[in-house]
Amino acid sequence: MNSQVTIKDIAKALGISASTVSRALKDHPDISRDTKDAVNELAKKLHYKPNAVALSLKNSKTNTIGVIIPELVHYFFSSVISGIEDVAYDAGYNVMICQSNEKYEREIINAQALLSNRVEGALISISKQTKDFAHLQMIEESGIPVVFFDRAPDGFDSDRVIIDDKKAAYNAVCHLIESGCHRIAHLAAPDSLAIGRYRLEGYKEALKDHDMPYIEDYVIVADSFDLSAIATRKLMQLPSPPDGIFTVNDLTAVGVMKTLQKMGITVPEKVAIMGFSAGSYSDITTPTLSSVDQHGYEMGVKAATILLKRIETQRTGRGETFYIDTNLVIRESTKKI
Amino acid sequence: MNSQVTIKDIAKALGISASTVSRALKDHPDISRDTKDAVNELAKKLHYKPNAVALSLKNSKTNTIGVIIPELVHYFFSSVISGIEDVAYDAGYNVMICQSNEKYEREIINAQALLSNRVEGALISISKQTKDFAHLQMIEESGIPVVFFDRAPDGFDSDRVIIDDKKAAYNAVCHLIESGCHRIAHLAAPDSLAIGRYRLEGYKEALKDHDMPYIEDYVIVADSFDLSAIATRKLMQLPSPPDGIFTVNDLTAVGVMKTLQKMGITVPEKVAIMGFSAGSYSDITTPTLSSVDQHGYEMGVKAATILLKRIETQRTGRGETFYIDTNLVIRESTKKI
Repeated sequence: MNSQVTIKDIAKALGISASTVSRALKDHPDISRDTKDAVNELAKKLHYKPNAVALSLKNSKTNTIGVIIPELVHYFFSSVISGIEDVAYDAGYNVMICQSNEKYEREIINAQALLSNRVEGALISISKQTKDFAHLQMIEESGIPVVFFDRAPDGFDSDRVIIDDKKAAYNAVCHLIESGCHRIAHLAAPDSLAIGRYRLEGYKEALKDHDMPYIEDYVIVADSFDLSAIATRKLMQLPSPPDGIFTVNDLTAVGVMKTLQKMGITVPEKVAIMGFSAGSYSDITTPTLSSVDQHGYEMGVKAATILLKRIETQRTGRGETFYIDTNLVIRESTKKI
Repeated sequence: MNSQVTIKDIAKALGISASTVSRALKDHPDISRDTKDAVNELAKKLHYKPNAVALSLKNSKTNTIGVIIPELVHYFFSSVISGIEDVAYDAGYNVMICQSNEKYEREIINAQALLSNRVEGALISISKQTKDFAHLQMIEESGIPVVFFDRAPDGFDSDRVIIDDKKAAYNAVCHLIESGCHRIAHLAAPDSLAIGRYRLEGYKEALKDHDMPYIEDYVIVADSFDLSAIATRKLMQLPSPPDGIFTVNDLTAVGVMKTLQKMGITVPEKVAIMGFSAGSYSDITTPTLSSVDQHGYEMGVKAATILLKRIETQRTGRGETFYIDTNLVIRESTKKI
């Protein structure tokens, strides 16, 4: 940054005192019109600006809330941010967003940035890599209210706004069964991710409740577009290939659909597909993709509302866990019967 | 925010002087181990944190660059941000992102937030609504370097990183002609947007260079998924309907494709489609979508690199305009011949 012009510089240039300059800038009645004009003119010319930090120190409020988010390009997280922003801007707060890009190291830098920018509160969803939480504890211990959303670590007193992943996955698999699938496979996220564990649990429970066997070969860890092709080919080469596939997210589901189409296997007639997220992809594919709507916008609204309440009432004490309802969006990829 | 615990509070509680507390916290050799332990223990208990603002005032650098972006959910802008972040984090800068959500009022708040957070530089792409630029001039006049990207206003001294929209559109339409289209329509953005004007110009020039007539009925303002359906039906009801459609962005192209498929018109056999942006949609549709790759990541890298150079060399003076190359991505929706 260029070296800032100060009140002293202006005073020196005009041969008057700093306090006169200061009062002139504030349009103080004791200062003559001529002096005010001269000061204002020079201040403009030199690009003088009041020291924003000094001002904010004085006001002691930044009116800014910080958000740490794993990935912006993700439709779900973008929706969450829209919800956060609508609540925050309406309440007179700015929103500053930092993207960890799923990297632990960046998340630490993000956390420090929120602190040094003196945000009034933080909304955080942790990266896939994050296993240690000292940087987040640092925020909490600074007395800045934190609300976690979607991906929340254990062991914090903060509020959490999440979905019931197990229940959502359970409902998704039940729908596949009800639409006529007899052999349902699951492309899962790694076990290290809570969503991976919970969605797998929901899958298993739905099978159990319908007296369908759990077959290990039907579960493959594959949670990206790139991983989906190999997993799909592997599944379809089984002696008894699946007639329904539930994927841990939509992009994986799109990959499955593309691979099946290349193999000449029709969707949903031969194999039905159910995604998770109801992102922007789901109504663009042919056939359109059935999925679980996680209601990102509502999650953002809820998280921001809770945070602003904490900030404004200065309420401390143990946080709560809030669940955002999910629902199935049934499109063409599961219409079997 | 909770009232912050100060050094004085700790000093009072322990019955020692503030300067002793301060030195104890800094692990000063003059202070005894016992005192240090007592101070540190109480500081931890009371959640004492050094005043971040005071610290940053002292350092006088925030090491933060601010970004104002119209829309996060947009694949192109997300790619730009990834490019910005990769450059910034490598150079030891934080990135704070503000989303205007295509709203002029929010863009003003965003600009003020960047100022009051004392960013060292700003990267800005203006909203569709923005016609007045006082809030951006305010940043420039504060001596904070600004680089505009993609959507840059006229009349600023700042650097600009943009694409050559006219040339990109020209190439896209030439490809439709070369792949066998004889009657090419264009779904355009409103004339008030520079991209709307330039891409239309490129369309017109490509027709002219191939001795094809410009037909007014073939150009309809429709730049969203929602608007595409009506526009497509209108085009296909013309006495001589088009056999190629160039859209101002990918989402509109996807809408055209879906509408044609509903009407039983095959793509690309009957009508070829060319989008613009090569976003995440373009390889997910069936058929996959030909488009113009704007290289968002490279744009972000370039913009951030220029900005950091301005910050670190304190270079002032007239900005330059940098063009990011575009290229055609030919997929299935234009394979006619």
